[in-house]
Amino acid sequence: MTFATFNPPERTLMGPGPSNINPRVLAALSRPVIGHLDPAFVGMMEELKVMLRYAFQTENALTFAVSAPGSAGMETCFVNLVEPGDKVIVCRNGVFGGRMIENANRYGAQTVIVEDEWGKPVDAQKLEDALKANPDTKVVAFVQAETSTGAESDTKTLTEIAHRHGALVIVDAVTAVGGTPVKVDEWGIDAIYSGSQKCLSCVPGLSPVSFNERAIAKLKSRKTPVPSWFLDLNLVLSYWNSDGGGKRTYHHTAPVNSLYALHESLLLLQEEGLEAAWARHRTQHAKLAEGLAKLGLDFVVPEGSRLPQLNAVKVPAGVDEAALRARLLNEYNLEIGAGLGPLAGKVWRIGLMGYTCRSENVLFCLAALGAVLNTAP
Amino acid sequence: MTFATFNPPERTLMGPGPSNINPRVLAALSRPVIGHLDPAFVGMMEELKVMLRYAFQTENALTFAVSAPGSAGMETCFVNLVEPGDKVIVCRNGVFGGRMIENANRYGAQTVIVEDEWGKPVDAQKLEDALKANPDTKVVAFVQAETSTGAESDTKTLTEIAHRHGALVIVDAVTAVGGTPVKVDEWGIDAIYSGSQKCLSCVPGLSPVSFNERAIAKLKSRKTPVPSWFLDLNLVLSYWNSDGGGKRTYHHTAPVNSLYALHESLLLLQEEGLEAAWARHRTQHAKLAEGLAKLGLDFVVPEGSRLPQLNAVKVPAGVDEAALRARLLNEYNLEIGAGLGPLAGKVWRIGLMGYTCRSENVLFCLAALGAVLNTAP
Repeated sequence: MTFATFNPPERTLMGPGPSNINPRVLAALSRPVIGHLDPAFVGMMEELKVMLRYAFQTENALTFAVSAPGSAGMETCFVNLVEPGDKVIVCRNGVFGGRMIENANRYGAQTVIVEDEWGKPVDAQKLEDALKANPDTKVVAFVQAETSTGAESDTKTLTEIAHRHGALVIVDAVTAVGGTPVKVDEWGIDAIYSGSQKCLSCVPGLSPVSFNERAIAKLKSRKTPVPSWFLDLNLVLSYWNSDGGGKRTYHHTAPVNSLYALHESLLLLQEEGLEAAWARHRTQHAKLAEGLAKLGLDFVVPEGSRLPQLNAVKVPAGVDEAALRARLLNEYNLEIGAGLGPLAGKVWRIGLMGYTCRSENVLFCLAALGAVLNTAP
Repeated sequence: MTFATFNPPERTLMGPGPSNINPRVLAALSRPVIGHLDPAFVGMMEELKVMLRYAFQTENALTFAVSAPGSAGMETCFVNLVEPGDKVIVCRNGVFGGRMIENANRYGAQTVIVEDEWGKPVDAQKLEDALKANPDTKVVAFVQAETSTGAESDTKTLTEIAHRHGALVIVDAVTAVGGTPVKVDEWGIDAIYSGSQKCLSCVPGLSPVSFNERAIAKLKSRKTPVPSWFLDLNLVLSYWNSDGGGKRTYHHTAPVNSLYALHESLLLLQEEGLEAAWARHRTQHAKLAEGLAKLGLDFVVPEGSRLPQLNAVKVPAGVDEAALRARLLNEYNLEIGAGLGPLAGKVWRIGLMGYTCRSENVLFCLAALGAVLNTAP
């Protein structure tokens, strides 16, 4: 075995994530490592928490980044907030709702599923009906931005309904944060998780999470221990949280360099402003949608529920979707995403996330897509 | 809130980890991100698995890096291999044995504890006695290199004893791998985890893990589902494992850039050679030990059980240990570690791990330590 240094190709990343990373973030990433209890690092973590609160639009004290990818952020919410026997309603309209069901089941929940078609948003009436039929529901969970389809659900309304029936809300905002409005405090979201590698355009491997006081009260009143040491927020908090004067306790070694990078990504978001970032995603999405229409490509999701940052389009009849994606990758260094589950082989997913979401990439993608479609066998 | 780019100080990291990172690894880390299903990335993962097998000295197919820190590697071993009601013997001679107990308990094990004094290796006779008293033991778990004390336990002997009594073995090798011999196949270790930021001198945030066929058989014969979606090896493997022809399935987004860095760290280890790396740690440890003796500092661990890469020494009577560490950090940019648990306030932990383990650092550390000790109030 003789291997060499890995030099990755330079790709334009227009799939479902990771998105391209701003050179400033890569520069931050590669600064020298320091100790996870170094006062300089601890100071940086405090800034990081403030900037994460901005990204989530919250004042929640318990706002931090889980030291693992978005899937671990999901697990953090479920493992801390669901106890064996709890009734949990999960709304499923794509892959990630399905993953939530698996999470709830593994922690012993009585899981009730509200099904919607892939590509459609979660139906608020169905949730209302499910809650009426299950008045003992403790938690309602759904995905705001379904990465598998590009459908956006109405978090504000779904949260209101859940609260009216006395349930806590867990929201998957992995693909949402930074690309489309997510307003944790205004909408009253109880627990939420995101991912670093989507519209925040940081390296993959971190999951920003925020819990409000209601969620913390549920955690504190558990009858059983949290069935994970690594993700137990009672423990993680003694490291991340300072509560002003509290002493930081070692829990696990934080991913120091990835957190440097997240700090820089959030700084970029702050410099641009959240509203401006949302507007940029809308604008570029509109340009992309116009171009896709000219190419004769139809969206999976009905207008009005489309996420600007994740555009699922139907593969035209007779086109070998995998072969076309391979050509984009090999001839143009352009990555777009395949379909998942029932949409496998039927759709492409074109991401416009974070740093990737710029007009040069939209134009390039449309041109490359046009070229390979025109020369498809 | 107006924050700026975070520019960390340049520290010499001679604590319990992270260790300093070779510039080649930082350069690899900051290369452009590519998709986690990109054929170029998948090729890199294959090389990574081969090099991890070398680091662990194993042919185990199931050898990969968990996308989270060493604590998650520990949890991966326990969550997959322990079922509710299983009898698990944990040997505790420091912090990390204690953490293993917490893990076993959270997964419903009947936990039996074999206690040894902090600073002493695990006593093989005590394990033998515990196994005789508990013939229904399913798993024996212990820490080869106790980062909290610097004591090394005899993995080969402890594993032989456990196997003689029909138990599987889980070994914590977080601080061991790359610094001291760890021979998974020769010693018959069933499941093992390590960390990226110790003697491998990669960024913190990854946990190399290896399971042999016996461990996989235990996983496959579980009566209950693995109570974690993120760490369920049945699922993780469909992404990491290829078994030759198998199709890779998306599980979670891999921490792409951190894996570039791990690839480069393992390349450095391979270029140096494991035996040479072990010898380097022994040589530098001997130099450090000689210098510490001249400064009148005594080791916590008796000779013969000292880890070369983690040197715990007693704080001289009357010295304010925290003040002295702060001076080293502020005046010399030198990080050494504090004591944990019963050793808090009583010891310093001087790490000589991976890229940090060079004679210039040993000499610098001894000189700085001498200077602050001589001018201690």
